[in-house]
Amino acid sequence: MEPSCPKTSSKCRGKGGSDSPAVDMEPKPLLTTEPSWKNLQQYYENKGNKLVIKDLFGEDPKRFDSFSLTISTPNDGDILIDFSKNRIDQEGLNLLFDLARARKVEEARDAMFNGSKINFTENRAVLHTALRNRANKPILVDGKDVMPDVNAVLEHMKEFTNSVLSGKWTGYTGKAITDVVNIGIGGSDLGPLMVTEALKPYNQGLKLHFVSNIDGTHLAEVLKKINPETVLFIIASKTFTTQETCTNAKSAKDWFLGSAKDPAAVAKHFVALSTNAEKVSEFGIDTANMFGFWDWVGGRYSLWSAIGLSISLSIGFDNFTQLLEGGFFIDQHFKSAPLEKNGPVILALLGVWYGNFFGAETHALLPYDQYLHRFAAYFQQGDMESNGKYITRGGEQVNFQTGPIVWGEPGTNGQHAFYQLIHQGTRIIPADFIAPVNTHNPISDGTHHKILLANFLAQTEALMTGKTPEQAKAELEKQGLKDDDLQKILPHKVFLGNRPTNSIVVKKVTPFTLGALIALYEQKIFTQGIIWDINSYDQWGVELGKQLAKAIEPELQDSTPVSSHDASTNGLINFIKANRS
Amino acid sequence: MEPSCPKTSSKCRGKGGSDSPAVDMEPKPLLTTEPSWKNLQQYYENKGNKLVIKDLFGEDPKRFDSFSLTISTPNDGDILIDFSKNRIDQEGLNLLFDLARARKVEEARDAMFNGSKINFTENRAVLHTALRNRANKPILVDGKDVMPDVNAVLEHMKEFTNSVLSGKWTGYTGKAITDVVNIGIGGSDLGPLMVTEALKPYNQGLKLHFVSNIDGTHLAEVLKKINPETVLFIIASKTFTTQETCTNAKSAKDWFLGSAKDPAAVAKHFVALSTNAEKVSEFGIDTANMFGFWDWVGGRYSLWSAIGLSISLSIGFDNFTQLLEGGFFIDQHFKSAPLEKNGPVILALLGVWYGNFFGAETHALLPYDQYLHRFAAYFQQGDMESNGKYITRGGEQVNFQTGPIVWGEPGTNGQHAFYQLIHQGTRIIPADFIAPVNTHNPISDGTHHKILLANFLAQTEALMTGKTPEQAKAELEKQGLKDDDLQKILPHKVFLGNRPTNSIVVKKVTPFTLGALIALYEQKIFTQGIIWDINSYDQWGVELGKQLAKAIEPELQDSTPVSSHDASTNGLINFIKANRS
Repeated sequence: MEPSCPKTSSKCRGKGGSDSPAVDMEPKPLLTTEPSWKNLQQYYENKGNKLVIKDLFGEDPKRFDSFSLTISTPNDGDILIDFSKNRIDQEGLNLLFDLARARKVEEARDAMFNGSKINFTENRAVLHTALRNRANKPILVDGKDVMPDVNAVLEHMKEFTNSVLSGKWTGYTGKAITDVVNIGIGGSDLGPLMVTEALKPYNQGLKLHFVSNIDGTHLAEVLKKINPETVLFIIASKTFTTQETCTNAKSAKDWFLGSAKDPAAVAKHFVALSTNAEKVSEFGIDTANMFGFWDWVGGRYSLWSAIGLSISLSIGFDNFTQLLEGGFFIDQHFKSAPLEKNGPVILALLGVWYGNFFGAETHALLPYDQYLHRFAAYFQQGDMESNGKYITRGGEQVNFQTGPIVWGEPGTNGQHAFYQLIHQGTRIIPADFIAPVNTHNPISDGTHHKILLANFLAQTEALMTGKTPEQAKAELEKQGLKDDDLQKILPHKVFLGNRPTNSIVVKKVTPFTLGALIALYEQKIFTQGIIWDINSYDQWGVELGKQLAKAIEPELQDSTPVSSHDASTNGLINFIKANRS
Repeated sequence: MEPSCPKTSSKCRGKGGSDSPAVDMEPKPLLTTEPSWKNLQQYYENKGNKLVIKDLFGEDPKRFDSFSLTISTPNDGDILIDFSKNRIDQEGLNLLFDLARARKVEEARDAMFNGSKINFTENRAVLHTALRNRANKPILVDGKDVMPDVNAVLEHMKEFTNSVLSGKWTGYTGKAITDVVNIGIGGSDLGPLMVTEALKPYNQGLKLHFVSNIDGTHLAEVLKKINPETVLFIIASKTFTTQETCTNAKSAKDWFLGSAKDPAAVAKHFVALSTNAEKVSEFGIDTANMFGFWDWVGGRYSLWSAIGLSISLSIGFDNFTQLLEGGFFIDQHFKSAPLEKNGPVILALLGVWYGNFFGAETHALLPYDQYLHRFAAYFQQGDMESNGKYITRGGEQVNFQTGPIVWGEPGTNGQHAFYQLIHQGTRIIPADFIAPVNTHNPISDGTHHKILLANFLAQTEALMTGKTPEQAKAELEKQGLKDDDLQKILPHKVFLGNRPTNSIVVKKVTPFTLGALIALYEQKIFTQGIIWDINSYDQWGVELGKQLAKAIEPELQDSTPVSSHDASTNGLINFIKANRS
């Protein structure tokens, strides 16, 4: 199908701005004009919006078998993706697969893996998959294989990790390192933070700290916990110009030199994840301790790169390698499995189904594992920064919804907080329930984990089945209520059910399975971006606020009232000026 | 106006199940039948949905003055609530105030403060305001003044706090307490956790830890950090039967006795926030160290009660009192200010405006203060458990949306994560920006805080103003782009703007101002519940999952496959059984 001419561009373009071939990433027709989209719309109106999940199980005894996937890993057990508790039947799924084919998901996927410059607004390839390309198959960008560079940085990370963990690397007074402070923000923070928390059982002995917020509180509180003689600061900023990171790094250096005095000591306590050798060197870091990456690594996909150095220092390089292996494993699955058996594709299509047809605005990530407490926060960036876009690759404004708001907290905590709304609120909230079969902490003979899993299972069951007025009435009668008292309470005790969920179960949260889980969501996000025909790999929306902040900053210097903005911004600035102490 | 007979109840009821007078809490007509609602609907269609915020500033030079509130506290400076960056004009606001009057918000507010049993499904008063009733004016429930009991528990908390903080209270080996572990979940966890984090600068020396999740990982990781000789466990469960809390408490006791050996030592290291003396005593806790509260304190409103003991231990009782004073201060404002100048009411009405007319599903809370990093998580419970309901007080199913999904992370971190979607996504996300003028950590001569505030200010400005194609084009031309290259990028660099925000600024985050902020949101949530005519104070939605978990738990005991559930739940259980190691 030929792409239609996008309205805002002067003529049709062929190759999405790429020097590499990207024949399958041409702008597509607006989603809502696709025949397969119209079929879905019709199906939704005639049937889809009336489906009752628990009835679907009654109608099809094999539903669990046909609506779940088991993906066997080489050494870390099976990964089960159960998507049977969704408001969809085989007919609907088939229409969604038709849509994926019409939107050329497979071709786009191959274009990404092959190094095409699919991030066309920045004229860049999207190759975080190269960072975990454990087969080491050459990947060409502008005719050059990127793998030798990838491998060289990995080797550098390995040497450095081993040097610090063995105690060979010492601080300015000759002591070994005990604490690592990662200073970065966004992608240079959320990934390492999430993963080091998730894999705490694999920690090799170093204490990890993370400073991201420009709020001086963040750094000040971390500095209270560390000793300048034994701390290693990792400054993570590709350009070494990110305002938050550079300001935090400078203040950390000032604090450090307050003890160390000698500027030469900086090189023993600061390393950089950056490509700006000049600025890194100017800061006082030995460029031998600079770990690079490339313009084809997006911030929110960078934990697989040198940005993962704090992960490697926490869990050791071998475990870091296992994380990469897990990501690579899902990449192979994503590349080779037919759409009908493809985990990321199925999760993506279900997201489209709820977001674009049922009008769901959000997607909840609910890990039943306390170590995964930042998993949702991580994919808040991963998903919302990727797919929070309103312009198609062809330059048209969308007339449909794109990326959802991602949110969530670990279970069972969430059950005692916001699940009330998922059960009895007026919103449809598609939710992924994630759990490990086995825990790293089987305390009290496994009692805790058994209860945890019972809750994990019960919630998706409850969300689906609900509770009918008849059931609720019987329960109330059993409690001795009757007549008016019963009638008054009854409607409040009824659960409509039919709330959709996915359940994702891993044998255990290991570096490998975590890597797999992360890649699963990354490729889901990719797939949705392709269906919506947006560029999931730029982030222009971050820019405007930065520009305006730069303009406001000097205005906060003194106490003179300002009048250069709208009345609200003026009023806020002047309130601040008047109330500083 | 007479309430219509609700469909599902056998006859009209007068007093909402209360023994106390509750004349103004009778079920109301369904919201969408209110004339004031219909007026709003008309206004939205004819004018409201076309309003452009930046134009409103152009049209009304006094807009900031009329669309903001400054609330002066006795000792902690002014609180500024700027709601001028919203898609509303005076006409719309007036219609919203009409709606509030039609829904008898003021009468309902008075009924709540007076101890009416407005939580009619549980036949309970809603009196967390009594806990912070610093004027000590009598409040009657079933004819009895609750204040003497409130004051007695406060006195008990004061004595205990002073005893622990002074070192008078000692552990089983005679050492003073150094660490406090709060074991609770939901309301017995989120409030104390959020507040102790928010008020860390006021910490008096004890280290605070929180264990909530049934996941054994949560407890296991905390136990690594503490010493049985110097730890105090607070077991927070009103009934002392909450499964998570009791399981964690038992495992904590087992761990403790592994060192202490003597069961009599338990009384020196465990106290209870509970009303179940029998179970508390059975556990080994001296009932003299049991701190009670009452059925008119909802879990998610309980940080003001004995549940706040960990707060008091962290910041000292005087500071805890200041927190109460701040809450009380806003209560007075809420009770006395006319609707047109009433902070909680205005925030509530704006929420209704976006949620019910613009179709916004979520509300973002974005504190520019790292210490407030759990503020959004706290109000996830506060809001979603309160207003995630679909049945009115009259027993009718709503035909409109109720409570939003609440989410957020601190700024500036969020800017590098999910703000992309707020700026350029397809969803409307009403957001509250919250910041302190002054920081507790003015490191590097205040540079950090200046940048933080510049960003705080710039974001609401950017969200409102956006960037026009003309502006974007001029910028791209300046960068040297032209022709096709420019046209290709241009649409991606355009920001539509007109994104609504509130800005809330306090002089500093003190116990008093934090108490005020919390009460501000509590009363906002109350007001919305009244407008929607739902019971914001029960939480039946938490129940069904618990029931089903109890049924599943014994099924996880052995490895025999189950077939008692739907095929999905069976499949998940059997996968778990087959993969346990």
